[in-house]
Amino acid sequence: MQIKVMQNILQANEKKAAEIRTLLKQKKIFMANLISSPGSGKTSLLEKTLPILKKKYRVAVIEGDVETDRDAVRLDKYGVPIALINTSGACHLESVSIEKAFSALDLDNLDIIFVENVGNLVCPAEFDIGENVKVAVLSTPEGDDKVMKYPLLFREASLVILNKIDLLEYINFNPVNFYNDLKNLNGNIPVIETSCTSGLGIDKWVKWLETSSQIYFSPV
Amino acid sequence: MQIKVMQNILQANEKKAAEIRTLLKQKKIFMANLISSPGSGKTSLLEKTLPILKKKYRVAVIEGDVETDRDAVRLDKYGVPIALINTSGACHLESVSIEKAFSALDLDNLDIIFVENVGNLVCPAEFDIGENVKVAVLSTPEGDDKVMKYPLLFREASLVILNKIDLLEYINFNPVNFYNDLKNLNGNIPVIETSCTSGLGIDKWVKWLETSSQIYFSPV
Repeated sequence: MQIKVMQNILQANEKKAAEIRTLLKQKKIFMANLISSPGSGKTSLLEKTLPILKKKYRVAVIEGDVETDRDAVRLDKYGVPIALINTSGACHLESVSIEKAFSALDLDNLDIIFVENVGNLVCPAEFDIGENVKVAVLSTPEGDDKVMKYPLLFREASLVILNKIDLLEYINFNPVNFYNDLKNLNGNIPVIETSCTSGLGIDKWVKWLETSSQIYFSPV
Repeated sequence: MQIKVMQNILQANEKKAAEIRTLLKQKKIFMANLISSPGSGKTSLLEKTLPILKKKYRVAVIEGDVETDRDAVRLDKYGVPIALINTSGACHLESVSIEKAFSALDLDNLDIIFVENVGNLVCPAEFDIGENVKVAVLSTPEGDDKVMKYPLLFREASLVILNKIDLLEYINFNPVNFYNDLKNLNGNIPVIETSCTSGLGIDKWVKWLETSSQIYFSPV
């Protein structure tokens, strides 16, 4: 009974996700779904990314948050449209949340949408929201064992951002273990090492976004 | 329909949690439910705690993990019984998981059970598993804003462990913001600052466990 209801929920979610993906293609918008644990640096990554991208592209952010507007407030100063979705306790965004957020955005005037999902390594990976790519953000203090402990996200992702790389010398994170696990799980998935403190790797991340999305972009 | 099913799930969970709590009282066992983001240091905390506690008490660990046995393997060397529950993708433990784990433990010969919940700041806080206390573990690199962003756990918890305190000088974590948020949310909840690298605060944590559980303990 419970399993059947869960299947119905997932099916309804996937149907709407497919509609969203079709709409994004029509509008030539590239949508990246950022997924990580709480505090891995999704918002900080966007703080570094938005000022660069907005010079060339029309960018918006959909902020998923359990109940506050803190991340949305942090990003507000970058002068891009932000649609905040409070999930009221729910641990992930679903495609219906994205449909709702779209009603607050002008899709005819956008090239890139970032979705900052709820901070959670488990559930967000299970729900297709119609994105073009899932980006897994992992921060080094979380440990080198997280790829295998939370494999679904790292299987589904098109890119891994290994953030807080500047902390490597102060913590117990073995890059060899991390890269081996990732290779075993998801072959040639690219990894970009970043520090939102020093700015390291942000240029590579921006370039990855531009390359990955070139078939979708319609530059200003 | 979906909401009704969710209510039924929660009600069934709470009924079983109450049964577990009664059983624990009969057996004079104290059970602490450790909840945090992935990589906050729950397993490291247990690695520091088990060698000390096992000198005085009969301790066991219930390990909740999405699909691996990595944390259970890390703890195996400490010579205490470990019951591993793989949730097969689910993002939290429920009381039925604990009932299942109990079948692998000798409850007549235990004083303390630690439950290491699935790494997730959202869902585990919603599910009563019959524990005596919820302990929220937050690590400093996750940021000082997490109390308000994930308030349910910090409302439900009896104690907050602020872990990786040794990294404070390398990161952007403002203790004043953290303590203010926590005070606003949950009044006088105690906080113990720990470092599982240096061992700082472990003595306070052990003392807190002993004090909190004295009515349950039957020392060896």
